[in-house]
Amino acid sequence: MDLALFQKAIAETYLERDAERGMSATVAWLAEEVGELAQAVRKGSPAQQLHELGDVLAWLASLANQLDLSLAEAAGRYASGCPRCAGSPCSCSEA
Amino acid sequence: MDLALFQKAIAETYLERDAERGMSATVAWLAEEVGELAQAVRKGSPAQQLHELGDVLAWLASLANQLDLSLAEAAGRYASGCPRCAGSPCSCSEA
Repeated sequence: MDLALFQKAIAETYLERDAERGMSATVAWLAEEVGELAQAVRKGSPAQQLHELGDVLAWLASLANQLDLSLAEAAGRYASGCPRCAGSPCSCSEA
Repeated sequence: MDLALFQKAIAETYLERDAERGMSATVAWLAEEVGELAQAVRKGSPAQQLHELGDVLAWLASLANQLDLSLAEAAGRYASGCPRCAGSPCSCSEA
């Protein structure tokens, strides 16, 4: 699954409606889905966890769409190791 | 950027340390990064927003790694339109 194609699919499916609601509503919805993911991690099945991971990713993509930013570019910062120490594995001291 | 390759890069860079801290610490860190993203959406520059989008994505990938689940599979649920109504654009009534 290519991240840019995923973000495009989310735009085609949801951008018009999500943009109408506005950015703050999208941030609120993302927070809600992170809460559902946290609950699934604590007491959900793997299928539920997978479902919630997908929902968080979808809201993150919707937010990126509204910001006109690329998730693939955002991810690129981590593509060749830790962006702080450049190590892989990371050798930063605990922040 | 392929989502599976991104998740693998995050595993190579962070999995050993993140797994040592445990799943709850990763959930807490993800929540912290979502907060930073929310702030950047409200008053940050596009560069800061891009940075925070990447950080949320990285913690989401770390969580998926610890759950032994695939972000690409999670994203796949949205690949051909809305998973509820199957429409693209989505034609679900407001939930």
